[in-house]
Amino acid sequence: MVAKQLSIFLENKSGRLTEVTEVLAKEDINLSALCIAENADFGILRGIVSDPDRAYKALKDNHFAVNVTDVVGISCPNVPGALATVLGYLSAEGVFIEYMYSFANNNVANVVIRPISLSSNPTAPLMIPHELMIPITPAVAMPPIPMWRA
Amino acid sequence: MVAKQLSIFLENKSGRLTEVTEVLAKEDINLSALCIAENADFGILRGIVSDPDRAYKALKDNHFAVNVTDVVGISCPNVPGALATVLGYLSAEGVFIEYMYSFANNNVANVVIRPISLSSNPTAPLMIPHELMIPITPAVAMPPIPMWRA
Amino acid sequence: MVAKQLSIFLENKSGRLTEVTEVLAKEDINLSALCIAENADFGILRGIVSDPDRAYKALKDNHFAVNVTDVVGISCPNVPGALATVLGYLSAEGVFIEYMYSFANNNVANVVIRPISLSSNPTAPLMIPHELMIPITPAVAMPPIPMWRA
Amino acid sequence: MVAKQLSIFLENKSGRLTEVTEVLAKEDINLSALCIAENADFGILRGIVSDPDRAYKALKDNHFAVNVTDVVGISCPNVPGALATVLGYLSAEGVFIEYMYSFANNNVANVVIRPISLSSNPTAPLMIPHELMIPITPAVAMPPIPMWRA
Repeated sequence: MVAKQLSIFLENKSGRLTEVTEVLAKEDINLSALCIAENADFGILRGIVSDPDRAYKALKDNHFAVNVTDVVGISCPNVPGALATVLGYLSAEGVFIEYMYSFANNNVANVVIRPISLSSNPTAPLMIPHELMIPITPAVAMPPIPMWRA
Repeated sequence: MVAKQLSIFLENKSGRLTEVTEVLAKEDINLSALCIAENADFGILRGIVSDPDRAYKALKDNHFAVNVTDVVGISCPNVPGALATVLGYLSAEGVFIEYMYSFANNNVANVVIRPISLSSNPTAPLMIPHELMIPITPAVAMPPIPMWRA
Repeated sequence: MVAKQLSIFLENKSGRLTEVTEVLAKEDINLSALCIAENADFGILRGIVSDPDRAYKALKDNHFAVNVTDVVGISCPNVPGALATVLGYLSAEGVFIEYMYSFANNNVANVVIRPISLSSNPTAPLMIPHELMIPITPAVAMPPIPMWRA
Repeated sequence: MVAKQLSIFLENKSGRLTEVTEVLAKEDINLSALCIAENADFGILRGIVSDPDRAYKALKDNHFAVNVTDVVGISCPNVPGALATVLGYLSAEGVFIEYMYSFANNNVANVVIRPISLSSNPTAPLMIPHELMIPITPAVAMPPIPMWRA
């Protein structure tokens, strides 16, 4: 599944982060996954939200610098080796990874992936092979990998 | 709950990432949360694993540059506004955030937080207030926040 | 010497970078040092300019997310070992480094340093010891280190 | 001019940075340009050195994680607008920028550029147009831009 990820500039990590969550809370928008790419002085909040278009507008209205990026969402079993299998599969398909974030919960691990082919050329068509958009069953003994829904 | 986070240098994002997951899979170590802090040329994999000491050793044995960092794990309800409440609570307690990553799954959102006070002075005692280590009940109507277990 | 560094969010690395330089050029402001702290999707331009206040205003007027940070500027001789001497001196004075950028030109290397003590607590007084603000003469045979002027 | 840039992982920003400069000083290697791409917990030192091969070996021998990256070095006049002209020229040639760092000194500004085309596909041939390797004279009134030598 391809999802819209928001990237939000946090000039001041803690303070602005709290503000972002408050803006989204006021709009009743859920932040289902997030990750901060930070430097010494500031951070970028990358997040998957329940309503990207409305979140984008609300943040812009509150004077945040926001950007939208295409990412891919995958669910895989929460067992040792499952991620290695998924990454091996992607690599065999020619999909290389810029960054990712993931969290396991009980039986599944939800993964957000940003493939290299999406970012190197902003005007290029979406390069994620179609097989990634549907449940995949790698060769090793592993249950089918359902798509994760934001 | 304070957890040990591993930071692993990936000179080559995609290739080394796959190798890390393979090294951990071979050791039967589960990667329950991860996030890549990347640059144009390389990445740093931040991860919470089922056995940090053994993971550290296995990665070192395979010539990875690895580092261990203290982080705090929290679970909160997966509803709009829950994260704003947690961040407001932390801020009121004087805990500021360097970075965090989080993922919701069904009813809960698991959060890994790296507070500023842990990193600015490597020799400083752990500055996380005791209240964070146990379930907290903020003033707004929200179920108690159980600690997340890696 | 303490200088004002601008940090400018570039949602799109190449395009926005060109725009920043054009905005500054139009205002006849010189960019005497710069460094991009980038991620896969965006960048932050850190720069020392000839007129920080006017640059800040011009960039804000052109809808850039801009931030101001205190940094320290030092000049040292452009010879092997000079930087090791400066860093050893700073470390002995309890000054730790968040980041720096530097460039040698003929006889001198100009260095911009962001010390940890300036960023970990935004309300803390400037923690750079006075000795760093004036020419310092380390113990090893090295010419005096004049302050660099932005 | 294409130069070899070293990227060195600093698990601990201040301490390891000092060690890097000491290793290079002992080998009588000069660090003519550097820039730290940092996170909250660690840094990556990007540097141009007088002898990349020997620097690489010395750092590896001292157990640093080191990487080599191709970058482009350019000199341009140290006047407002010169960088905008260079970036406009590069953009017109289809060269986009991942990151760069630059420092002015008296009459010239030395610039290190990492173009996108070099990093998105590690096996791609060098995509820097030949015109960048030689002095270029943009249309605006500006003295010729000589190549910078590491």
